[in-house]
Amino acid sequence: MLLSEKLQLLRQNMANQGVHACIISSNDPHLSEYPANHWKIREWISGFTGSAGTLVITENQAGLWTDSRYHIQASEQLDNNLIQLFKEGLPEVPEIPKWLSQNLKSGQTVGINNALFSDSFTMELTDKLKVNNINTVRNFIAPEEIWEMRPPLPNDIITDISEDLSGFSRIGKLNLVREEMKKTGINYYISAALDEIAWVLNLRGTDVKYNPVFYAYFIISLDEAWLFVNPEKLSKKISHKLSNDKITILQYDFFNIFLEKLPLGAAVLADSKRTNAAIIENVSKIYKIKKEDSIITNLKAIKNETEIKNIYKTMIKDGVAMVNFLCWLYKNIEKEEITELSASKKLLEFRKEQSDFLGESFETISAYKEHGAIVHYAVNQDTDMSLKKEGIYLTDSGGQYLTGTTDITRTIALGKNPEQAKIDYTLTLKGHIALATAVFPVGTRGVQLDVLARKELWKNGLNYLHGTGHGIGYYLNVHEGPQSIRTQENPVTLKTGMVTSNEPAIYRAGEYGIRIENLILCIEKEETSFGKFLTFETLTLCPLDKKLIMKDLLTQEEVDWINNYNKKVYEKLAQELNCESKEWLKLATEQI
Amino acid sequence: MLLSEKLQLLRQNMANQGVHACIISSNDPHLSEYPANHWKIREWISGFTGSAGTLVITENQAGLWTDSRYHIQASEQLDNNLIQLFKEGLPEVPEIPKWLSQNLKSGQTVGINNALFSDSFTMELTDKLKVNNINTVRNFIAPEEIWEMRPPLPNDIITDISEDLSGFSRIGKLNLVREEMKKTGINYYISAALDEIAWVLNLRGTDVKYNPVFYAYFIISLDEAWLFVNPEKLSKKISHKLSNDKITILQYDFFNIFLEKLPLGAAVLADSKRTNAAIIENVSKIYKIKKEDSIITNLKAIKNETEIKNIYKTMIKDGVAMVNFLCWLYKNIEKEEITELSASKKLLEFRKEQSDFLGESFETISAYKEHGAIVHYAVNQDTDMSLKKEGIYLTDSGGQYLTGTTDITRTIALGKNPEQAKIDYTLTLKGHIALATAVFPVGTRGVQLDVLARKELWKNGLNYLHGTGHGIGYYLNVHEGPQSIRTQENPVTLKTGMVTSNEPAIYRAGEYGIRIENLILCIEKEETSFGKFLTFETLTLCPLDKKLIMKDLLTQEEVDWINNYNKKVYEKLAQELNCESKEWLKLATEQI
Repeated sequence: MLLSEKLQLLRQNMANQGVHACIISSNDPHLSEYPANHWKIREWISGFTGSAGTLVITENQAGLWTDSRYHIQASEQLDNNLIQLFKEGLPEVPEIPKWLSQNLKSGQTVGINNALFSDSFTMELTDKLKVNNINTVRNFIAPEEIWEMRPPLPNDIITDISEDLSGFSRIGKLNLVREEMKKTGINYYISAALDEIAWVLNLRGTDVKYNPVFYAYFIISLDEAWLFVNPEKLSKKISHKLSNDKITILQYDFFNIFLEKLPLGAAVLADSKRTNAAIIENVSKIYKIKKEDSIITNLKAIKNETEIKNIYKTMIKDGVAMVNFLCWLYKNIEKEEITELSASKKLLEFRKEQSDFLGESFETISAYKEHGAIVHYAVNQDTDMSLKKEGIYLTDSGGQYLTGTTDITRTIALGKNPEQAKIDYTLTLKGHIALATAVFPVGTRGVQLDVLARKELWKNGLNYLHGTGHGIGYYLNVHEGPQSIRTQENPVTLKTGMVTSNEPAIYRAGEYGIRIENLILCIEKEETSFGKFLTFETLTLCPLDKKLIMKDLLTQEEVDWINNYNKKVYEKLAQELNCESKEWLKLATEQI
Repeated sequence: MLLSEKLQLLRQNMANQGVHACIISSNDPHLSEYPANHWKIREWISGFTGSAGTLVITENQAGLWTDSRYHIQASEQLDNNLIQLFKEGLPEVPEIPKWLSQNLKSGQTVGINNALFSDSFTMELTDKLKVNNINTVRNFIAPEEIWEMRPPLPNDIITDISEDLSGFSRIGKLNLVREEMKKTGINYYISAALDEIAWVLNLRGTDVKYNPVFYAYFIISLDEAWLFVNPEKLSKKISHKLSNDKITILQYDFFNIFLEKLPLGAAVLADSKRTNAAIIENVSKIYKIKKEDSIITNLKAIKNETEIKNIYKTMIKDGVAMVNFLCWLYKNIEKEEITELSASKKLLEFRKEQSDFLGESFETISAYKEHGAIVHYAVNQDTDMSLKKEGIYLTDSGGQYLTGTTDITRTIALGKNPEQAKIDYTLTLKGHIALATAVFPVGTRGVQLDVLARKELWKNGLNYLHGTGHGIGYYLNVHEGPQSIRTQENPVTLKTGMVTSNEPAIYRAGEYGIRIENLILCIEKEETSFGKFLTFETLTLCPLDKKLIMKDLLTQEEVDWINNYNKKVYEKLAQELNCESKEWLKLATEQI
């Protein structure tokens, strides 16, 4: 079907149902970062394949809102005659509710499928539209209904992970959750977030790329639990184990029906940020709902001793793969044809050599020269560029290991480099070090620390428009909550055991991008009469490119940090490397 | 009346009205920082004279909640047998709504006089109590009714200030407000905040100490305005000027009646943080209310060119007074008896020598040795201590001048000092400099910069529990919104023209307090391809005590900042000083 035909059919359906505009989400009902193809309705209609973006269709207009990561991609993929691109983040671009208020008339109606939106989004939308007397219909599924050849839900098998890897038995985790439920008087706790379900059940899946999760819903009471999943995905052995832990398995589709059958008067907890609006709405009609923070998300973020022990091992494996890759790249550049695409494939090969490696944790960014300035650059055969002994190369990649998830960015100089790139790299590194070495009292939020990574950039009239740090899962999603280190307020405080990324950057459009990303573990530092103080331990093990470091711009403390870091990298990785890589690493980690 | 009698009478009244607990505020209906005695009902009942604190009385318990500034004072002033002290900020101390929920039964009722609380407080209270099925009665005035010999409202005269001082005519300011009203479709804008009314009308009063405001309410429409004030406070000349600007003067008490007579369907703006809950509630019943940020507060915070020019002059006057004071103190210590109290009186004398000085902008903190560790130490004859040639002396003071308001803290060594005090002072100074020299993009909030002032303290296991910076008025309140620099989220961004304090500190209980406070003006720094960047200019002019600076702990940039600052202080102040002070300042500002 052509785009014009899709739009015509949809508008007919809208008119039949008295809807004057509809909002089409890129979410699945679990608000996943990577939805299965079954849910990619926005992509099917608009042709835009980016992971984030919302389509709005009115009787005579259509617009796609997407963030700065996708401004270029969307402008290439969209038919601009039929769908207008709204570049989120630019000051002149209105938010969707505002745009709808300006383009609809009083008394008109907006349709959304609220199973594909967060409760907070639909609440805000409804409130803002109401001011202008615009109604919302919340169960509008005409877009899905016109979808021909819709892909089915994935049906991949589910595996379980042992206590050696998870650190806690399934029942142990459920009991932790139940303790929290008791504290706040919760009878039933609904989890719709796929990584929460995977974590609490010590199960993993392959339903989507990069995130080792499976499609399911989960409800926990104080003595039972119900997993809504296609039972064919589970082996008999796992089904039996779940049954032993008093977990009943029910069909995925049965979730909404089951919800309505909970005992009257039950107090139900659902995290309004991690549960779709349809569930929240249905539950709110019948039960006392508490839209608090998700218990599992909060427990999951604090890595336990076993997980941390395994993460240390994982960092060695991933560091070895990265060092092998960098050594190979330096040695072979201009000897063989190396492109952005072939480099990222080679990096994957080196990761595959590592034990317990299961796949990439997100799509590798392999970005040469000006491509590095495109924050979420995804190389393809049309854009692929050959690497030469010049310019800046940025690679942001990560792996899923049975023993943890990694996410690392290194920026390297492939030849001689102008002063400006060295200054930019060094300023970025100063920010990276300032965050890595931060000390802060218990109770500190990420927003309070973000400036440490940016201060030196700001002094030089530079900045980056993304966050500085995101939480990361343990053999789970590479992006997880609840903590973050960014300019936006997030009430979650940083706690010992949390693993977060540290990734300041500078992007010079048309020239290059520089980003330095390590994972950092929040640990205790000391307790004084002024309270308990925390700090970070850098986990990622991979040298920093000395050619890009301008020592003159560094303080002695910063020089010491770099030397200590490189020394630690060598000590941890050397014995795992072959002679060639070891020799290369020796030089790469020499003191500056 | 004895405390026990007051409590008995109040509890009788509560029982008669079916109220099981009441909350007694320290606010006036304008939510002023310094209410007139007429509103000090909490003080009258409890005997606690601190400026902040909330009294809760149930059928058989009574508690006073106050923050860390007043923990010591409250424990001394309260009769602990009858009123329990709840030290806000300590982790084990519950917030009032939680405590009430724990101590009342389902179905019981809490009474408050909602004219003395902010809308956000009563909303939160009502919501939190509702969860536990506890009701609230919002017009409970039994505490005021039992008050014998209640002081009358102050009736001081009102003066007007010229455009030379204010930078804008009254009608000019009203028109600025009206432009903003038009943008968001407001018909009537209610201002109950006394400093807002004083600012927009170019009027000042002396109804309360320290804040040059007068009791009034103000309503603005697109072509008229109404000032609710005792007309006797206004001269004929001022009344005439107001009338020329189409401002009608009505009795103070007429405000609530007038409110109900606005045209039906009117859109009314009231800032929910700066308007008491009774007003918000009354208006909400009848009109379309918009509880947005106050237009006047936002305009007032951005100092205009005239104000800034005058502030520069004020800083010279206040700097001269401070330098004369410090010179006098060093020269006369142990030659004559100097105490905390006499020192603060002497400082006031030096300020009185300055032109346009009208009075102190808050109660001077004159704190020697361990008293310095009491954040809001107010010296009295019982606590007064003699200053000797040893130990640390902290003075935090400010003046109201026709040309602006000041707020400065200096910490000085009166003799030789242990290493620790020097380290503490230097670390505090490093934080002070880091904030003073911060560069940040347009759109940055204070919470993002707060860590700059704390970073070095945190690295050394130190901290201070108050904010780093508050807004300051222009010949108005020493504490004003909307901006702040503190650990708590505040969505207001820092804008050019805002004046804020910069006051990191270290308090060692039982030993000394160190605080370094200057006022900083937000100014433009540069515009690059990454956006527009702002920075601060330090306004306050008074040397920093070199004896307390450990140069080894400073970077070269920090040394340069200190030397440049002291140099500027000398250049700006020298010609205004007598020989003795000038000579002292010359030495005090020599390069380190």
